[in-house]
Amino acid sequence: MTAGRLDGTALARQVSEEVAKGVAAFRAAGGTTPGLATVLVGDDPASEVYVRNKRRLCVEAGMLDLHRRLPATAEQAEVTALIDELAADPAVSGILLQLPLPAHLDAPTLVERIPAAKDVDGLTTTSAGLLAQGRPGLRPCTPAGVMRILDAYDVPLEGTHAVVVGRSVLVGQPMAQLLQQRNATVTVCHSRTRDLVGMCRSADVLVVAAGKPGIIGADAVAPGTTVIDVGIHRAPDGLIGDVDAPAVAEVAGLLTPVPGGVGPMTIAMLLSNTLAAATAAHPRD
Amino acid sequence: MTAGRLDGTALARQVSEEVAKGVAAFRAAGGTTPGLATVLVGDDPASEVYVRNKRRLCVEAGMLDLHRRLPATAEQAEVTALIDELAADPAVSGILLQLPLPAHLDAPTLVERIPAAKDVDGLTTTSAGLLAQGRPGLRPCTPAGVMRILDAYDVPLEGTHAVVVGRSVLVGQPMAQLLQQRNATVTVCHSRTRDLVGMCRSADVLVVAAGKPGIIGADAVAPGTTVIDVGIHRAPDGLIGDVDAPAVAEVAGLLTPVPGGVGPMTIAMLLSNTLAAATAAHPRD
Repeated sequence: MTAGRLDGTALARQVSEEVAKGVAAFRAAGGTTPGLATVLVGDDPASEVYVRNKRRLCVEAGMLDLHRRLPATAEQAEVTALIDELAADPAVSGILLQLPLPAHLDAPTLVERIPAAKDVDGLTTTSAGLLAQGRPGLRPCTPAGVMRILDAYDVPLEGTHAVVVGRSVLVGQPMAQLLQQRNATVTVCHSRTRDLVGMCRSADVLVVAAGKPGIIGADAVAPGTTVIDVGIHRAPDGLIGDVDAPAVAEVAGLLTPVPGGVGPMTIAMLLSNTLAAATAAHPRD
Repeated sequence: MTAGRLDGTALARQVSEEVAKGVAAFRAAGGTTPGLATVLVGDDPASEVYVRNKRRLCVEAGMLDLHRRLPATAEQAEVTALIDELAADPAVSGILLQLPLPAHLDAPTLVERIPAAKDVDGLTTTSAGLLAQGRPGLRPCTPAGVMRILDAYDVPLEGTHAVVVGRSVLVGQPMAQLLQQRNATVTVCHSRTRDLVGMCRSADVLVVAAGKPGIIGADAVAPGTTVIDVGIHRAPDGLIGDVDAPAVAEVAGLLTPVPGGVGPMTIAMLLSNTLAAATAAHPRD
């Protein structure tokens, strides 16, 4: 048996098109054009690529590309001032501070400077608190993208056992909360988990965000399980995930490929968050 | 076999004495006397009792009792103004808004009005976000009290499977996060969980905060499990918890009694949070 493929690339395209329609409808109703301010400090090559992609997709969705760049030598006060400027600018619907920042900067303090209403990455303490309390707010893009994949493929969640491997603030934790809010029974596994294989085998839905290449093998997956691979790592023969895909595909019911699974959905949800931030800031009927 | 008793009453007394020593030490070092502002709106008899106990223990620990009371007819603006006044008052270390509020008031908005630094109940969105992100902050009293019980009795957590029954914002959710931050593998069960008994039986540590009398029976507890009963309900022959105590005591390794388990710890942690808020606000070496 070979697992069905959860096609994140196709779904991300669909979400982007939905956002583009939403932008057009919002403008037609008298709303402003949503604007995304990507902030890039320094010249990390990977960050350059990520930011370029985000800007391109933002423009394709009909939103304003309000990119801002600072040199690697920028002081904390300079970045702070830029964020404050963007926070005050009504043309800016969302602020994305590309991480990692140069080591001399205090990244958590800068992230906290982003107002929750423009926190399209969902990384501030307020956004985390709103999620934890089940209140409306902007959710982190990667776990939000996983939820969209599960929904697009009608994966049942209510009453199922969902196991999340990894407990990062960016992915694992918010993932667990989103799954729980859909009435899954959620277990969060991590590096100290004793019987990782046994716990994963009891999952109906398994989301792997451990950041360790191939950590989940076929022995950890019960037949028919839906497996979401959040990992992405460079390997000699291309990109691989946290899941040993060739082996797991033989037992899983559904599986996200790497690349082409969760990755494209992350950017799509950023666009979706930016539109949501714009419409919340300037509601129009 | 009969489970060992996790004596919350004795431990709460010990914590209160520690707080009293901490208050004395803080004052001796030139700090101000910590002050707890309990806010009671209306005359709900149960709330009256709770607030009276909190005030009494606060005074016994050497802290200022800055109680404030408003009539049941108080308008939203009136309660808001009171919270703002207490927020601005340097004599007030912590603000406790006793819940539930009269139905005409918007309780969540009023809770949010409490600054995170004085949120000794740990209920605001900011406090929830700080906990979710594993940052320092004031934690909700009941789950914090459970952690103190587990630690006082040297219950190992790292690598164990901890199952939390109940996913409330007040108890279940923060409980899961606190256990996870101590490296337990945590599963949160709730009303939609399919195999509640099976999941609970796989726990090394079982925290029951379901709000349903006797929902956890002996069949849901593996021999030797540490069982924490957060529930408290009035029954014909006295107070009972969420756990069927007589039956579970035969299989559990350790068990909190009801009353005398988690309940007293909740108030003790409120005192502890008030001292922590005072020392954070006015640090003295």
